[in-house]
Amino acid sequence: MKYSKLLLSSILAGLVFIPLLSAQGKGISESLAKEAQQLSEAALEENIAYEVVESLTTEVGARLAGSEAEKRARSWAVAKLKELGFENVHEEPFEVPLWERGIERAEIVSPFPQQLTVTALGGSVATPEEGVVGELIRFSSVKELEAQPQGSLKGKIVFIDEIMTRTQDGSGYGEAVGKRRQTAYEAYKKGAAGALIRSVGTSSHRFAHTGQMKTITEITEEIDSVPTAALSAPDADQLTRALERTDSIQIRLQLTPKFEPASISGNVIGEIVGTESPEEVIIIGGHLDSWDLGTGAIDDGAGIGITVAAARLIKDHYPNGLKRTIRIVMWGSEEVGLVGAKAYADAHADELDNFIVAAESDFGAGKIWKFNSFFAEEKLNYLSEIADVLRPLGIAKGDNKASSGPDVGALKAKGVPIVSLQQNGWDYFDLHHTPNDTLDKIDPDELAQNVAAYAAFVYLAAQIEDDFRAEDSDIN
Amino acid sequence: MKYSKLLLSSILAGLVFIPLLSAQGKGISESLAKEAQQLSEAALEENIAYEVVESLTTEVGARLAGSEAEKRARSWAVAKLKELGFENVHEEPFEVPLWERGIERAEIVSPFPQQLTVTALGGSVATPEEGVVGELIRFSSVKELEAQPQGSLKGKIVFIDEIMTRTQDGSGYGEAVGKRRQTAYEAYKKGAAGALIRSVGTSSHRFAHTGQMKTITEITEEIDSVPTAALSAPDADQLTRALERTDSIQIRLQLTPKFEPASISGNVIGEIVGTESPEEVIIIGGHLDSWDLGTGAIDDGAGIGITVAAARLIKDHYPNGLKRTIRIVMWGSEEVGLVGAKAYADAHADELDNFIVAAESDFGAGKIWKFNSFFAEEKLNYLSEIADVLRPLGIAKGDNKASSGPDVGALKAKGVPIVSLQQNGWDYFDLHHTPNDTLDKIDPDELAQNVAAYAAFVYLAAQIEDDFRAEDSDIN
Repeated sequence: MKYSKLLLSSILAGLVFIPLLSAQGKGISESLAKEAQQLSEAALEENIAYEVVESLTTEVGARLAGSEAEKRARSWAVAKLKELGFENVHEEPFEVPLWERGIERAEIVSPFPQQLTVTALGGSVATPEEGVVGELIRFSSVKELEAQPQGSLKGKIVFIDEIMTRTQDGSGYGEAVGKRRQTAYEAYKKGAAGALIRSVGTSSHRFAHTGQMKTITEITEEIDSVPTAALSAPDADQLTRALERTDSIQIRLQLTPKFEPASISGNVIGEIVGTESPEEVIIIGGHLDSWDLGTGAIDDGAGIGITVAAARLIKDHYPNGLKRTIRIVMWGSEEVGLVGAKAYADAHADELDNFIVAAESDFGAGKIWKFNSFFAEEKLNYLSEIADVLRPLGIAKGDNKASSGPDVGALKAKGVPIVSLQQNGWDYFDLHHTPNDTLDKIDPDELAQNVAAYAAFVYLAAQIEDDFRAEDSDIN
Repeated sequence: MKYSKLLLSSILAGLVFIPLLSAQGKGISESLAKEAQQLSEAALEENIAYEVVESLTTEVGARLAGSEAEKRARSWAVAKLKELGFENVHEEPFEVPLWERGIERAEIVSPFPQQLTVTALGGSVATPEEGVVGELIRFSSVKELEAQPQGSLKGKIVFIDEIMTRTQDGSGYGEAVGKRRQTAYEAYKKGAAGALIRSVGTSSHRFAHTGQMKTITEITEEIDSVPTAALSAPDADQLTRALERTDSIQIRLQLTPKFEPASISGNVIGEIVGTESPEEVIIIGGHLDSWDLGTGAIDDGAGIGITVAAARLIKDHYPNGLKRTIRIVMWGSEEVGLVGAKAYADAHADELDNFIVAAESDFGAGKIWKFNSFFAEEKLNYLSEIADVLRPLGIAKGDNKASSGPDVGALKAKGVPIVSLQQNGWDYFDLHHTPNDTLDKIDPDELAQNVAAYAAFVYLAAQIEDDFRAEDSDIN
């Protein structure tokens, strides 16, 4: 943290050049930049984000979409936002189907009897109570499975051993997640009795990574899939080694999840109302739900903590608020298919033109290293100018192709400008969707760097005269 | 690995001084030292140890003392030792009680409902089928629990949050293991309904570490203990954080292990029979059983692999054998209280005077960094001289206070000289007794360094004219 403070001091002492006005948008004034950087410096001294994540993960813990626990998380969120002094704190409920995990076991029956570490994928159908037994058939990718003739795997247990690439920017996930989404349905077409996938994850620790197959709202009672679970990486390796020794491995898979077609979820909102243009809104937030295995610390307690702390810091420094409204949105039911994001975009369709910019923090608790935008071309000076303000935090200017946080995708699709404060995700998929997603995995200093960046960015977005859209246009 | 080879080359080129004869025992000749170091060099090029561990952990997997799986491990061991060309391969069966894990669940019932990651300690009694519910009472050490008045914790769930120290030499374990051994019995005296301990382990990953309470042969049907489980470190932290928020936490603990008073276990033996003094025996080995959660790769597949590979290497280089007999012992039922070690020492009581030296590898797969002995004072020159031979492998001379591997403790107690080829255990207790003890955690190069050290040591012990005992004495 110290080097950042040094750089910040240099900035404040005027030793580092900050561009004033560009030929494009009206630009960020020196005084605004200074204020933003003072907020950053203050953020690095604070611990609020960590306290918020600690409170959520301890007092609520895991909070599956549509569950009683997610309901408790909403109550927690309302109380916490009120306690921290936010305005217009409320829930916005919506319906969601509820999928709940049951027993989940897999074992090699023969020739090398032993238990395997597995977890059902979200939305998986159940096996019969006693499980299914079938011969293991390995494929090195889900594409290889797709290429099999229809009905050619009658009664088999499919095993997709596709390996995920570790990357800083999460691009390995985009590729790897295909097998999680498709295997159950492809295996069904081939006639299989069940399926196992190597976890979508990068760790060699013996945790299976869960995650949603089809979006939960697409999953119906109609059976067009087979019971499907993720194997931990060591277990996937184990099966591959076993198959090097024998062609015939019998597997028993037992999964007893249950599916309820309707339950209640919701988004939670809190604001700092704007003093001059209260109808103009900066949206920041994370998602409140988590998978049921861990306590949802990095996914996405961290995002909740970072954005709440950034807004709270602004409130501390500007008790009357900034020009525009800062709105925290804690989306519900993100993990099962962005259900809260869609509900939010639908419910606020009339208001979208007034959304100045939206940013979600949902990629763990690692340091932010790049600032990307999705602004109108004629407003690209702000990409550079905001990046200049963030540079002392170790953040580089990115490009104008920001891929949104998942929940702001629905806003981006309707033309809302977005930014991505991109975190280092090198280790994110070691923990993602596992029981090991717990508070101890968060580095408080890295979390504070996130708060510093969000506070500065949100301050600028709320105070500039300009916005990030094309002139005379609702849509970029 | 390469630096070791460089140093070995220097030795072989005569660039490094090797002491010849000391004023004490007869000493190690230069030619013996050279031969030993050539074996070391060859070991660094080999992969047999890894192949043996891979075979055991894949084809058998977990192998709990007294279980069907341990029986399969013995069959595997007999077949493997024969396949590798050892002589006198056989099992030496003995009886052991069988304790088998059942359901294991713990949860915070109120005020923060959530599941906890736990695993029953070996020998734990069961809760009623539906579990027990009680108020959580935290103690920072088992000593603090001991100090409570008898009967003062009626119906409570005891929580021992004692933290283990990470050390290279395993000394942190010696201290930490007390809580695992005592908590169930101390909690019973105080009237508790159940107990949870922070795992005896050093990792912050969400694995609970199992391990034996009382030696299994001491555990009777008599109920003098309460159901007791280990919590993963993040779960222990979670309970402590929860207790900072409220004094009254209700916990449900559900454990359904079963206990059978008699089952069959056994040790497995293989030899390279000596050419000149076949009755004089060098004992090396590891333990064949493992806990039921992982696949027993570092505990103690590694020890099996290292010692088998070292002996096999000697057989490759000296097809007719060495002067003395090299005996591999794979002890059974180590984890539940050194039952195989005691059976072995009892069964071979008449032969103990002919045991030249014994060494067990049972501290994972990390590099060996120190050579310790337990020799007669007048034979201490061998501590130095063997250490000199091992030095190119990065191994330092230790002292004459070798703490034995657990299974050779019974031999040491009867006066058999022992050595300890001490491994780096810095990470060992991250994995020890968890589901995460799997093959991928072994570094093949570090494993090969172990084989190199064992091969050199065993060669010397089998070839020197002298032995490590006091003259005219059966006992050190």
